Amino acid sequence: MQRVLLVREDREHLVEPGEEFGTDLGVLEVPPDPEPGQTLETHLGEQFRVRRLRGPDLFHHFERTGAPMVPRDVGLVIGETGVAMGDRVLDAGTGTGVLAASMARAGADVTTYERDPEFAAVARENMTLAGIDDAVEVRTGDVTDDLETLSEHEPFDVVTLDTADAPDVVAHTPGLLVDGGFLAVYSPFVEDSREVVAAAREADLVDVRTRETIQREMDFDDRGSRPSTAPVGHTGYLTIARNE
Amino acid sequence: MQRVLLVREDREHLVEPGEEFGTDLGVLEVPPDPEPGQTLETHLGEQFRVRRLRGPDLFHHFERTGAPMVPRDVGLVIGETGVAMGDRVLDAGTGTGVLAASMARAGADVTTYERDPEFAAVARENMTLAGIDDAVEVRTGDVTDDLETLSEHEPFDVVTLDTADAPDVVAHTPGLLVDGGFLAVYSPFVEDSREVVAAAREADLVDVRTRETIQREMDFDDRGSRPSTAPVGHTGYLTIARNE
Amino acid sequence: MQRVLLVREDREHLVEPGEEFGTDLGVLEVPPDPEPGQTLETHLGEQFRVRRLRGPDLFHHFERTGAPMVPRDVGLVIGETGVAMGDRVLDAGTGTGVLAASMARAGADVTTYERDPEFAAVARENMTLAGIDDAVEVRTGDVTDDLETLSEHEPFDVVTLDTADAPDVVAHTPGLLVDGGFLAVYSPFVEDSREVVAAAREADLVDVRTRETIQREMDFDDRGSRPSTAPVGHTGYLTIARNE
Amino acid sequence: MQRVLLVREDREHLVEPGEEFGTDLGVLEVPPDPEPGQTLETHLGEQFRVRRLRGPDLFHHFERTGAPMVPRDVGLVIGETGVAMGDRVLDAGTGTGVLAASMARAGADVTTYERDPEFAAVARENMTLAGIDDAVEVRTGDVTDDLETLSEHEPFDVVTLDTADAPDVVAHTPGLLVDGGFLAVYSPFVEDSREVVAAAREADLVDVRTRETIQREMDFDDRGSRPSTAPVGHTGYLTIARNE
Repeated sequence: MQRVLLVREDREHLVEPGEEFGTDLGVLEVPPDPEPGQTLETHLGEQFRVRRLRGPDLFHHFERTGAPMVPRDVGLVIGETGVAMGDRVLDAGTGTGVLAASMARAGADVTTYERDPEFAAVARENMTLAGIDDAVEVRTGDVTDDLETLSEHEPFDVVTLDTADAPDVVAHTPGLLVDGGFLAVYSPFVEDSREVVAAAREADLVDVRTRETIQREMDFDDRGSRPSTAPVGHTGYLTIARNE
Repeated sequence: MQRVLLVREDREHLVEPGEEFGTDLGVLEVPPDPEPGQTLETHLGEQFRVRRLRGPDLFHHFERTGAPMVPRDVGLVIGETGVAMGDRVLDAGTGTGVLAASMARAGADVTTYERDPEFAAVARENMTLAGIDDAVEVRTGDVTDDLETLSEHEPFDVVTLDTADAPDVVAHTPGLLVDGGFLAVYSPFVEDSREVVAAAREADLVDVRTRETIQREMDFDDRGSRPSTAPVGHTGYLTIARNE
Repeated sequence: MQRVLLVREDREHLVEPGEEFGTDLGVLEVPPDPEPGQTLETHLGEQFRVRRLRGPDLFHHFERTGAPMVPRDVGLVIGETGVAMGDRVLDAGTGTGVLAASMARAGADVTTYERDPEFAAVARENMTLAGIDDAVEVRTGDVTDDLETLSEHEPFDVVTLDTADAPDVVAHTPGLLVDGGFLAVYSPFVEDSREVVAAAREADLVDVRTRETIQREMDFDDRGSRPSTAPVGHTGYLTIARNE
Repeated sequence: MQRVLLVREDREHLVEPGEEFGTDLGVLEVPPDPEPGQTLETHLGEQFRVRRLRGPDLFHHFERTGAPMVPRDVGLVIGETGVAMGDRVLDAGTGTGVLAASMARAGADVTTYERDPEFAAVARENMTLAGIDDAVEVRTGDVTDDLETLSEHEPFDVVTLDTADAPDVVAHTPGLLVDGGFLAVYSPFVEDSREVVAAAREADLVDVRTRETIQREMDFDDRGSRPSTAPVGHTGYLTIARNE
């Protein structure tokens, strides 16, 4: 059963339908079928509103095993690869699992690899939290060990990588992807991006390009409009390529 | 029946299953159930590969009634609002329909308004091309005329606007959105963004922020790595806000 | 006599030749003609090195009456207008005086207006500190009151403005500038820049353009190279135009 | 004698005082002491205005032996190093000579090295054009061959490098610079910048930082204000460091 958010002013709690939820404002019985928009009360009469979990909430409510991918970068991966309903996606470097969960929320069936067994266990918990554990299989291990087996099965529509050994995997993507399928690799450093691009070109992938995204928040106040003096920093380079 | 792409070198043709497709390389009978990856031949023996249409292809293959939203911006809207399976989305300013179609591909049920009847007709054709006409209702008209009716029905999870009168619609979003639902407004100009932000604050939406996205393509060659000397230009400001 | 810096590890003191300078490390007699690179000792034997004041030091050592212009923006004004030896420059909105002082250091003769009498007094002190008080006349008052008189005298090579009423002054720049002379206006907000551009076009100035400058610091460490995750924020828009 | 510009609508000609200047609009006798702002006529009665050459004009009127440094980057070097009257500057990688000439125009005495004898000859011509040949010595050769000799003479206030072997020179800058003197290195590629930074740190220079500058031109029209959809591209990374 998918969890819901209980919201009250600045507080947000992720709770399970049917659970008894204790807070300093009293105990709250979460109904088995909480309705979004519904108001619930603790035994002290304090109110919370029920809210469905949305994609950007995953960033805040998933248990973290590292810095999770920000909603902007999740969106860029989805937009540039067209992840959609019915897609089969291979993901490596699960981490906190925000990207895998977001692609699953958009209808994809995701197989994701995480080398660290503890991280993988947390990621599985996060998928349950997000209510998409049916759509995401978190495999503990290194995707490079499974490349041969993966190549023998039904190909993937999209491969997404956020691992240090991404170039090794990129070399095998033509055998993993459908015709017209996309590769997306997220790399924090220039040098890594460069190696990913070299591997993608070597593997005859097409439309290979690496982009850096700079976002500036705008300030609108009584004096006028301007970019914020405290902009958003660098997250990573995103390399996209296509299988032909 | 969803169309497929026939691909050969630099050519890409969008064809309907079962149609007889004529090209200067001969006539090709598209089978009623073309398989992605399958090779088809014209009567002159020239080969094409079958490919499924993916999100980024919509940008190139939709009939245009204006500049369609680029995959990057489609992704930012989806990432920042978390559009996903089961969502109900209200969209205004359909245009070519790339955003509406992409949200539908991610599992949303989209109601989109386009004032220009000819543009609306083209957008409907595009939804058929993309095979998601069941999930997108293109209404001819101005969303501001329907706000009252829309407010009386089941609320939306996300409202996306790309229209000149966006501020008027923003004022009504609290009545249109579920608790925790997102508003996304795309505006090319600073002044428009400013008005949208003012309307969103006035309407007590929360987490109101406007971002400009600058992307730089990286060049990797034998001499070294650097941002391209021919970068990607400005597309628009994206304002995101949330209903509480 | 131009002051010099006494430097020791993280400390920097601006001192006058011939003065007796007291510090917690003892008293130091600054010689009447300190030589850059020379080592001086306090009566406790603690050493300081003599250093000449350079342009970027003005930013740190001038007494501030507001946020001084950063070295980057000073450089952009000088680079885009070509301020050089023998130039006559009209500057309005002196503020702390970093721009006026920097242009004087590059050989220009600067007349600068500051409306606030206290700010003007501080700016005069700062010019003395920088040893360029001969080259910078800080006038207390509003440049708009003097436009007629200024137009009757020898024209300026460059006009630099950092004031809220810049558009009013811009309207008069053709009468203030030599043929081929440059106007540079620094404006923090989009709306101000827009008005400046409108005034410049109306006044038939040519090559009118407004630029926003985004700088990213690069991080180079053992893991690789990437833009800093803590970038430099927005300072202002710089509008440049030329008199023909 | 410093040359002047003759300007008429879109034309600009650089002429020598006293020369007879032939154009398709007739022959024009340039007086021996042309006054800026003065109107001159060809023998056919066609008029030209006299204009002094300013810094940004060097970019357009110097004979090119490669892509000259743009006014923006010239300004950033001057602003970040504080190049000013009386400075002694060592420059390597003269190229077209725009940077050396601009620093000389700001009052510096510049020694610049150019390996290519033909390029060096053109640069010398350009210094004459700009009327600052007294202040710039263009040496044909590789600065690395002269480092020992240069170190034995009076130190420089600023060292500016735009050469492929910049890291080798950087290693010697502490012996070339005064206390508090600045190093500025211009490098198009990430890898070069990285090596420069490594060399600067190794040489115990302080305040070592590399910045990338992104500029966006603003469009102001009747519809509103926005960054140009055709922005300015990447030029180079600028590394600044200081001698302590």
